[in-house]
Amino acid sequence: MSRPGEQGLIERFFRPLATAPGAALLSDDAATVPTGDGPELVVTTDAIVAGVHFFPDDPPDAIARKALRVNLSDLAAKGARPAGYLVTLALPDDWAVDWLEGFVEGLAADQEEFGVSLLGGDTVRTPGPLMVSVTALGHAQEGGVPRRGGGAPGQRLYVTGTIGDAALGLRLRQDERLALRWDLRRSEREWLLDRYLIPEPRLALSAVVAAYATAAMDLSDGFVGDLEKLAAASRVGAIVEAARVPLSSAAARIVRCDEDALGVALTGGDDYELLIAIDPDDVEAFEAEARSCAVAVTDIGVLLEGEGVEIESGARLLSLDRSSYSHF
Amino acid sequence: MSRPGEQGLIERFFRPLATAPGAALLSDDAATVPTGDGPELVVTTDAIVAGVHFFPDDPPDAIARKALRVNLSDLAAKGARPAGYLVTLALPDDWAVDWLEGFVEGLAADQEEFGVSLLGGDTVRTPGPLMVSVTALGHAQEGGVPRRGGGAPGQRLYVTGTIGDAALGLRLRQDERLALRWDLRRSEREWLLDRYLIPEPRLALSAVVAAYATAAMDLSDGFVGDLEKLAAASRVGAIVEAARVPLSSAAARIVRCDEDALGVALTGGDDYELLIAIDPDDVEAFEAEARSCAVAVTDIGVLLEGEGVEIESGARLLSLDRSSYSHF
Repeated sequence: MSRPGEQGLIERFFRPLATAPGAALLSDDAATVPTGDGPELVVTTDAIVAGVHFFPDDPPDAIARKALRVNLSDLAAKGARPAGYLVTLALPDDWAVDWLEGFVEGLAADQEEFGVSLLGGDTVRTPGPLMVSVTALGHAQEGGVPRRGGGAPGQRLYVTGTIGDAALGLRLRQDERLALRWDLRRSEREWLLDRYLIPEPRLALSAVVAAYATAAMDLSDGFVGDLEKLAAASRVGAIVEAARVPLSSAAARIVRCDEDALGVALTGGDDYELLIAIDPDDVEAFEAEARSCAVAVTDIGVLLEGEGVEIESGARLLSLDRSSYSHF
Repeated sequence: MSRPGEQGLIERFFRPLATAPGAALLSDDAATVPTGDGPELVVTTDAIVAGVHFFPDDPPDAIARKALRVNLSDLAAKGARPAGYLVTLALPDDWAVDWLEGFVEGLAADQEEFGVSLLGGDTVRTPGPLMVSVTALGHAQEGGVPRRGGGAPGQRLYVTGTIGDAALGLRLRQDERLALRWDLRRSEREWLLDRYLIPEPRLALSAVVAAYATAAMDLSDGFVGDLEKLAAASRVGAIVEAARVPLSSAAARIVRCDEDALGVALTGGDDYELLIAIDPDDVEAFEAEARSCAVAVTDIGVLLEGEGVEIESGARLLSLDRSSYSHF
């Protein structure tokens, strides 16, 4: 029997087990658990494996922060205020005390930055590679939990921050000569590498997301593919203007000199920015509140009747080899 | 620098990160998360690794059920009603569709048995062995969450079910000739093997635990060692009469013919029974309610002023080589 990819695995094997309404059929960034009269609890889990999701020689504090932050990013996308997290660490036989000290320092720094506490965990020995699995818990906020499927025709599409840095940073990490070919300044090179190494969860925006987003998700597997997921869940289409997709100065420099780079930026994954749909009536208030949180948001397109995602570049449609990246 | 064991790891590295009161300094079976006016949420996580916590050729449905049940057992110990669970599955490169079908069937069967839903998860590829990490969530019940540290002198000690079956079952699994030496009937052999393979979380008792237990924990690392943890957390000592520790007929037969077996049973781990402290005034009501839940509970001893755990066998103290088992 042929073996499905990760999405197929979820649909075929795991979705039938997601019988609780809050599980959203496993097709969202996080699940919700009702708590009596209190706000719903939002819960999400993501694991990272050495050699698959990060480089085994990445600094241990960066590995810890990535593992935590990809989960906090899911909470931000669901408009949740973080409550805490659990971490399961599978340590290879040759683990070193120094390494673990660095790992814990990374967690401690992020706990302070994001105001979360470790709630529990498990440490197991493995003959395989290092693996870090984090479960993050949060409280739903005023306005509720925006799902991927809440979008409707006419709503504007926003992204936070800049898109494509992490995917380009990964390319640089894999082939250092690209820094020369792309004519990057040292600060630009470091920016891109860092964006891959340590994502920035947009928790500062989560209350605004809860208040205004009709649909939201975090961008982990590539902007275009993730937008396709949001559009499909909302049973709408989407048009994005490529020129409006926000790029960092480093990414913009690369896109000017490398014709493949825009495709990499738009489909490459690991952005951990938020994709947010906003009702046209709320656009001004949303933008104003995002400004007051000091999180950049950019209007990149619109949801439409129909299906599918079109990326417009001037008068033509951008054609991309693939829309997303799979770590599985 | 020397490398600490699992307990040392927790104390040295992770405890300082557990800043939330509900994390109980990582010294309990589960953490609690406040939810406004609603009952607290109880959350726990445990991972199992092929070749460490189970045999790689165990049936996939049994692996799934063990991974889920060791977490449900923690909820039962904290008097919680299960709300759902998340599962992270690290699949080796050679995973097979048949295997995954069996795994999912195991989860589905237990979802039905225990009334829980999958809430989310992650599937990652690993060059290492299969690993299953489960996070289980539950709601605290009337009476609150009994902690390990709630015991006081004079309180009676109870355990559910029978002790030592899983540890003896593991020995059998490792050396089939023991079945002959121990003169076991086929049904007894299967009972012991099954008790190791698929633990029985005592969720049927969880509301009674919430209502009556002053202190409680689940027995995962060996009865004596776990009791030492409860006594230490409660700052008391404990005396247990070895003859009162409930043994299955299979375990009792082995203990009669193998002088080392009692030590194995009392310290070997993987029981997933509950250890519960009850105020003397509540003993009758507790026993009556446990009977009405059809969960066997046995009074095995008492908490005392002082410290340390003594296991009395007739007029002498049982001396054990070690008090618990570490999977790490």
